[in-house]
Order: sequence, then C-alpha cells, then structure tokens
Amino acid sequence: MQIFEQIASMRQACRELQQRGKTVGLVPTMGALHDGHLSLVRAARAQCDVVAVSIFVNPLQFGPKEDLAKYPRDFERDCRMLLAEGVSLLFAPTVEQMYPPGASTVVHVEGLSDKLDGKLRPGHFHGVTTVVAKLFEIVRPRFAYFGQKDAAQLAVLRKMVRDLNMDVELVACPTIREADGLALSSRNVYLSPEQRKQALCLSRALSRVQTLAAAGEHRPATLLCATRQIIAAELAVNVDYAEIVDPDTLDPVHDLQRGALVAIACTVGATRLIDNVLLPPMKARHWSKAARQPATRPGQVPGVAAHPDERRLTRWTQ
Amino acid sequence: MQIFEQIASMRQACRELQQRGKTVGLVPTMGALHDGHLSLVRAARAQCDVVAVSIFVNPLQFGPKEDLAKYPRDFERDCRMLLAEGVSLLFAPTVEQMYPPGASTVVHVEGLSDKLDGKLRPGHFHGVTTVVAKLFEIVRPRFAYFGQKDAAQLAVLRKMVRDLNMDVELVACPTIREADGLALSSRNVYLSPEQRKQALCLSRALSRVQTLAAAGEHRPATLLCATRQIIAAELAVNVDYAEIVDPDTLDPVHDLQRGALVAIACTVGATRLIDNVLLPPMKARHWSKAARQPATRPGQVPGVAAHPDERRLTRWTQ
Repeated sequence: MQIFEQIASMRQACRELQQRGKTVGLVPTMGALHDGHLSLVRAARAQCDVVAVSIFVNPLQFGPKEDLAKYPRDFERDCRMLLAEGVSLLFAPTVEQMYPPGASTVVHVEGLSDKLDGKLRPGHFHGVTTVVAKLFEIVRPRFAYFGQKDAAQLAVLRKMVRDLNMDVELVACPTIREADGLALSSRNVYLSPEQRKQALCLSRALSRVQTLAAAGEHRPATLLCATRQIIAAELAVNVDYAEIVDPDTLDPVHDLQRGALVAIACTVGATRLIDNVLLPPMKARHWSKAARQPATRPGQVPGVAAHPDERRLTRWTQ
Repeated sequence: MQIFEQIASMRQACRELQQRGKTVGLVPTMGALHDGHLSLVRAARAQCDVVAVSIFVNPLQFGPKEDLAKYPRDFERDCRMLLAEGVSLLFAPTVEQMYPPGASTVVHVEGLSDKLDGKLRPGHFHGVTTVVAKLFEIVRPRFAYFGQKDAAQLAVLRKMVRDLNMDVELVACPTIREADGLALSSRNVYLSPEQRKQALCLSRALSRVQTLAAAGEHRPATLLCATRQIIAAELAVNVDYAEIVDPDTLDPVHDLQRGALVAIACTVGATRLIDNVLLPPMKARHWSKAARQPATRPGQVPGVAAHPDERRLTRWTQ
C-alpha cells in the first residue's frame, strides 16, 4: 500500500494507473475506521482494479463548537486495517495541503444543504461537498463509495455530482450495525456503556417504523409519532430531528407511495448520533410482509427483514 | 469538426481521445466569435493535439437587468470560423442541458468574486465559475484558454482551479485590439459609430498609464487620476471602476514594486466595456523604457511597447 501526503504525488499515482487503463475506486473517510468503512473498501475492491482510500478529518465540515479536536484518530491502526483489505493507495493529506492559506473556494449545493443535518449544522454540507469535490479532482475515481448511514450527505453529494456533471458514479453501501442494532460510527467510542445502551433507541425506533410500514401504515405523522415515543422513553436521549423525507430532495413526504427515507439524529450526552432506514415504495409493500424474517445481512435493522427495493437507491448513475 | 449538443456525447468523444493519449485543449466561449477568440483557438492548436471549443451563453452569469436576451448570437458564422481554424470538437449545449430543472449547485470563489466586475455584477462570477467547472468536468481538458482582457475572470478562475485542485492548466492569452486600440469584445457590436470613437478613451487611458509607469511614476493614485481625467473628457462615457490591483488577489496595491493590473470598466451608452493592462514589476522598469517602440504585436496597447514581464502572468501552472 502506497501512502501519500502530497496532493501532487497522489494525483500522479492515480493518473499513471488510469493511463494504464485501471479503474480506480475511492473510499473517502475521516479515519477512525470501523467495519462500516471496510464494507465500502470491500465494495470498491469487488468493482475496481485499484482501491484508493482517503483519510482526512476535514475541518471545513465541523462547526466551531463541534468535535473536530477530539474526533478519534489512530492512523497506524487505520493503516493496518486498510493493508489487510488490499487497499493500494492511501491518501492522508495534512490540513495545510488541502486548505493552504487563502483557500476560499466552496462547492455549495443550494437548498439541499440546509436540510436534516444541514439545518442543525450550518455549513456542514458545504464542507463535505468542497472536500469531496477536491478529492474527486485529485483521484478522478470511476466509482466513489459512501455509507447509506449518512443519507443526507449522500443526497447532497448525488446532487453535486449530477449538477456539476462530475464523471464519477456514487455507490451507496448499506449501513453496518452491531448485533444489537446500533449503527457503526466513529463517534460511538464517545459513548459510555450506559449511553451505548441508551443509543439503541435509534435503531429500535427505526425498526418499529419498518414494522409499521410493512404492516400497511402509510401516514408519515403516525410513523414519526411512534418513533418519537420510543426515543422519548430514553430520558437521556434528545431528538435533533426525526423526519420522513424524499431520499433525493430531503423534503418531507406526505405519503409513502414512492418510498421514503426515515432519518433520525439524536444527542446522547454530548454525542450526536444519526441513523436512518429506507422504506420501499408502497406498491411493493406486500412483498415486505411476506419477507418478514430475522435480519440476515449487515445493514439490516434487527427484527425487520431486508427488502430488495431498499437497494433501489444504493446506486446512482449519472 | 464534430458538433455536440449533448453533455454525454461530448464527454464520450473527449474520453475516447484521452484514452488514445491525445491532449485536449478547451476554449470556452459565449459565441459571437471575433479575433480574440480565434487567438485562443490558435494558442490551443499550437499546444494540444485536439482543440475543443464550447459555445454557451451562460444565463447564470448574467444579472436580471443585463443583456442576456440581446447578447449577439450567430451560430452558423461561429461554426464556419471554427472550422476554418481546425477545431475538432464544438460543444454547444442548450440551457436545459447545462441547467436542468432543479439544478442548484454552485462553485463560489469567496472574496475574489466580489471585486472589480463582481462588485458591480453580483453573482456574475459564481455563474462563471460554476459553468467553467462544469465544462472542465465534461471535457477534462489538459489546458484551457482565456483572454487576458477578462482579467478579473482569470483571477477568479485561477483561484478556483488552485483551491479545488483541478487538473487543468489555465493559459491566459493577450488582449487582441483593433488597430486604433479598442479591445475586441462581442459587445462592441452594440456601439454606434460615435460610441465606437468614444470607447477609445479606455485604451487611451490605459496607454497613458503604461507611459507614465514606464517613465517612473509609481503612485497608483496618480496613475488612476490620469486615467480618470482621460475618461472624464469623454462626457458620454461613465466609469464603473478604474483600479490598480494585484492581478491575483484583485486587492488595490499601494505601490507598483511587484507589478500590477490596471483595470477599467465603463459604460458607453447602454454598453458596458472592460479593458486592462498589466504593469511589469518596478525592478524591470528600466528595460521598459529602453524598449519603447510602436506596438508590434496583438494585445499591445498602441503607443506603448510590449514588455516581456507582462507575460509573467499569462500562464499559471498548478
């Protein structure tokens, strides 16, 4: 595995591979890797000749009162994990490399960036779109891999790619969960054992929504009410948002005919956690009932079955 | 010459050439071509295997009260001119191709976009950076050619390319002028014969600045005063701005030690015209005096000699 800190050398390595006809897949990360990231790496490895991973804790996407300073970092452990996964190129630039003094250009997806996490974290998504646009320019990947767990980020990045005619295909990979349902996140290390248990109310609430929707409940307000009741039962957990939205526009939906994204953000102590599920379109809902089985694959909220239509949004081709 | 209206087909044609190892040079234009544009095409042809030209009157860079509707368009004449210059690829998308309903992503160079033309045309430069970013994504040129006449645009685009790590080299080409000094512009067709004469005060004022600077005058305020006096003598011409700035930051300079950009924008009737010259660094100024000869090359303001240092900014390599 080659490790690059310099933009120019990373770019050169990628160009040389591309000139030899190799397909490069990029997995952008902020390090502190877990099985969720590794699932992205595996998806890239299955699809591309060469897997490039970036590790960069992007200051532009953190608000002034957020956890930039304490965000978990363990570069050597990350390297070992990526090496074991057969990653070829690791790009780990410094902040000075990515944002030299005076850098002031931003890529901004207007409208979409102010919804869900963007509403509570002003400027967050323009930090994300700017750094991802830069990484795409440096690497020029054919495919880039992101977790479905960051559903709003995915919607914003899809729109950026489409609006700016970027020549890359975004691949969304299912959320990876612990056996008890907790969605993997680098921020889970902030949780005390007690908070860790309290945090389960997110996946429990989403699982309940899936069950109700599979049983025919199609009123977003009713589903959200059930969600909030489950979270409200955990007194230490506060809801930032709980919404049922169109997965592309992030606007609230009024019915579930065409499927929807159920997205939750909560704070548990000082830790902010997000989670979501995709509800399949109503017309396919009968399938879902028939298929209700214990979870069998990663990314599935325990207790509710995988639904093939949940994958309809996992790839977006320009 | 192949003509493409569709983004996908233009992209594919460019990728096929690039896979065969061809260097593609891009000349982005808004059509209504003149010798200024053709000088860019010739520069591209001299440097690249394949020249691609885009013609797109970009609505995003026009203000609501500007001349979008009446901007001169003559596609067939443009095609004939480009064919005669050996252009291989012409990209002429519709507005709907470039901005489908709902498109909302912008590339914004903060700070720089509010200076010079950006100050008087709010939103103009984010229209420019957004469309150029899109064209770069579609074509992926190795080199892209712009006129030095649009000096503020050049500064903004250079910053965009640098900040976003775009893998393209911007090439600035000298301003092309009529024999009497008027800088070529598609908007010159708006001028009546009388206005055409009045408009000469722009190049006359810039020529005067060059003469004074070559003679040792190094106080920006004095140079600007001379400029404004010449323009004030044309009662029908109003100054939008007349500034002496750093060509990269567009901030006013307080001395000319390191050279400077002298930029003017005026309205003549309803027509807005811009023009500029680059002053060489002071330390090289003695050379300039010795070299004072009648203009011998295109882009030179008549009456003041070319200075080799004027070219120091004509290429910017990432």
